[in-house]
Amino acid sequence: MFDALAFLSAKRDPRAHTASDIEQFVQALTRGEIPDYQTSAWLMAVRINGLTSDETAALTLAMRDSGALVRASERLNGPTVDKHSTGGVGDKTTLIVIPLLVACGFKLLKMSGRGLGITGGTIDKLESIPGVRTALNARDAIAQASRVGAAIVAASKDLAPADGILYALRNATATVDSIPLIAASIMSKKLAAGAQFILLDVKVGSGAFMGSLEAGRQLATRMIEIGQQVGVSTSAVISDMDVPLGRFVGNSLEVREAVATLLHPDAADPRLLQLCIYLVAHCLVAAGMANSHEEARQRATQTLSSGAAAEALAKIIHSQGGPANLDGVLASLPQADVTHPVTVDTCGRVSKIDAYTVGEISLHMGAGRVTKQSPVDHSAGIEFVRGLGSIVQAGDVVAYLYYSSDHKEDCPTWTARLRSAITIEPVDSNWQTPPVILDTL
Amino acid sequence: MFDALAFLSAKRDPRAHTASDIEQFVQALTRGEIPDYQTSAWLMAVRINGLTSDETAALTLAMRDSGALVRASERLNGPTVDKHSTGGVGDKTTLIVIPLLVACGFKLLKMSGRGLGITGGTIDKLESIPGVRTALNARDAIAQASRVGAAIVAASKDLAPADGILYALRNATATVDSIPLIAASIMSKKLAAGAQFILLDVKVGSGAFMGSLEAGRQLATRMIEIGQQVGVSTSAVISDMDVPLGRFVGNSLEVREAVATLLHPDAADPRLLQLCIYLVAHCLVAAGMANSHEEARQRATQTLSSGAAAEALAKIIHSQGGPANLDGVLASLPQADVTHPVTVDTCGRVSKIDAYTVGEISLHMGAGRVTKQSPVDHSAGIEFVRGLGSIVQAGDVVAYLYYSSDHKEDCPTWTARLRSAITIEPVDSNWQTPPVILDTL
Repeated sequence: MFDALAFLSAKRDPRAHTASDIEQFVQALTRGEIPDYQTSAWLMAVRINGLTSDETAALTLAMRDSGALVRASERLNGPTVDKHSTGGVGDKTTLIVIPLLVACGFKLLKMSGRGLGITGGTIDKLESIPGVRTALNARDAIAQASRVGAAIVAASKDLAPADGILYALRNATATVDSIPLIAASIMSKKLAAGAQFILLDVKVGSGAFMGSLEAGRQLATRMIEIGQQVGVSTSAVISDMDVPLGRFVGNSLEVREAVATLLHPDAADPRLLQLCIYLVAHCLVAAGMANSHEEARQRATQTLSSGAAAEALAKIIHSQGGPANLDGVLASLPQADVTHPVTVDTCGRVSKIDAYTVGEISLHMGAGRVTKQSPVDHSAGIEFVRGLGSIVQAGDVVAYLYYSSDHKEDCPTWTARLRSAITIEPVDSNWQTPPVILDTL
Repeated sequence: MFDALAFLSAKRDPRAHTASDIEQFVQALTRGEIPDYQTSAWLMAVRINGLTSDETAALTLAMRDSGALVRASERLNGPTVDKHSTGGVGDKTTLIVIPLLVACGFKLLKMSGRGLGITGGTIDKLESIPGVRTALNARDAIAQASRVGAAIVAASKDLAPADGILYALRNATATVDSIPLIAASIMSKKLAAGAQFILLDVKVGSGAFMGSLEAGRQLATRMIEIGQQVGVSTSAVISDMDVPLGRFVGNSLEVREAVATLLHPDAADPRLLQLCIYLVAHCLVAAGMANSHEEARQRATQTLSSGAAAEALAKIIHSQGGPANLDGVLASLPQADVTHPVTVDTCGRVSKIDAYTVGEISLHMGAGRVTKQSPVDHSAGIEFVRGLGSIVQAGDVVAYLYYSSDHKEDCPTWTARLRSAITIEPVDSNWQTPPVILDTL
């Protein structure tokens, strides 16, 4: 019989839980035997008093084992990797990196999430393509990954169900932003999916859950430690999310940008491209498929230029019910009925675009979900025609808002908010674009 | 609309709540609008991060105002006082102090609780007298107090109902032992009852909620501060609960000892008598009915010796449905069918009797409640015939266990446990009985 009061007292005082205590807690939780009010009191104690590395690892494994194990590495023929982003604004890396990894020889079962709050989710982006199905069961997803190299699907509810229970309560009790709980939540699902390598893209900045580089490093370190404890090679890239990633924010707009990046990498947003190549090169080195990062980077760049990655994305989309080729995809994407230009009123250099504000505007335009139940307008979003580092004149159009004419009356507010998110500085020839890759762990 | 997430975040970080935030929280809680899982996460945050004096006072007032106000001081003709003990083992002071206060001219509406865990409760003790009713409504209780000087009744559920909601959750989430929450819980009910003076008997030691003198002082200080904030004269006596109070532990046994103390104070347990006289003297000074503690002590002692307090208790009991006089009370008390002597096996002085262990044994003998639903055996308990400071020989009987023959097989365990609770030291002529009154605030 699990002694919930003793378990709560320990984390309250705080004394460390044993792995066996945590296992019993998660098992009882999964069986529905712990009332929510006890679980939430424990979550608050954890949020305030923390979890040790050993406790975090034990929680992760117990959550992994609370449901089905997919064992992707055993069921797929070829090196398997799981790339996970902690989420941000304009983050369409998955739609570029996954097909590029496929083109480099990897097999991937990618489980993704939906957007919540200001951060987008890959599943929403994919679903902006008419016909695409994301609710594949593990068997069908594995079969597709074997055939076309990858499947990008919504995480099934029987994967780490204990995490689902904890996540819902964290959301309702102001205990989301706990580094050990975030680490355990992410890693439990990655470990249940079962790839050989895990590559974490930890976003930091105003548009990310982790505001500071320090917090990002802590989260990355915690997740790498968990990987080490269970013998799954795990590494992390810490990347910038103070500025939206790429030129487009919003579901169908980001699919458009991802497809364009795969088809015409020379014209791609340089920071987006740099991050995607870096992530793929990192996987190639981790999997022993390249001897150095430089060699890996060249391989990734060449593969991208060859068009093989574009082809891989086309196959994935088609296999999941979408159009047969990328032209078809581009033609089928929904388009907003209003396009509204946003101009600037000063001259200078665009030195900052605040990711948080951009995410918030696009959320309210309909690109995201205010609550889990909110419907998403796949066509809504923002395009930056003059991106970070551009030199602009007063009156220049820097961005377009795409939205439904139902929201006409909100346009002045959005325009003003977007202007406030853009910092224009006097031109200084020493100016350098802020780096997108901040650290690698 | 109350923003529960903002409220939780504040106490989590921690930032202080405003009085208005706390009021809104308690009002929403009382209306049943806050899910238990949010309340319990808040309780854990409070248990870990504390509440300031201002927050504690605001919580107390909000809980007081969550239900009915009795306004005892306005409805009773004469000085009113509320004496509250934080609870202990063998603590029958209420049954002695209340009638003695009545005999000194006070009017009292005393709301008491039931025992839970190792500490007893006055309501259980009173109910061991056949016929006695404790579930009086406020109107009847006030009427009785006007007529016979006091009523000793179970706290009604419409008094500070928010406290009831919080208490149930604290019990289930390991957040009971929070000094500000204990202070607010006690004071909200005292203030709702509405006496002119509040006298707190804060017990400290192994048989009390507060283990250390320091913790007891903190709790007392917190409660006095609350009283000051609302202009109700509040003082506290800190008294020892390392050793059971008096010679008897167990409901009908304690009624017997209280009655004997009132009828024959010369033969009473000296520590019990000292504490009761001290508490009453303190009230006389607080109410301006004596100029010095010494004068008040003499008045209390004389009043006790006059038999007026015994008469007052008889009237209270009779008015609540019990026998017409104290002889009748003594004759009617239930008696256990087994009396088992406990001997010691060494010579020396009884230098310590551990209150916690004694409380635990009598709990399991049936005198207390393991859970709120457990039935109570009013006749079960322990009598110490050789109390603290006695010099004993090997083979002497130091105590008797009183219990139901249904529990025959547990007797050897209880006997051994009780022996382990009694410390016998070599006789030293400098030995002094540990003081019962540790501090007055």
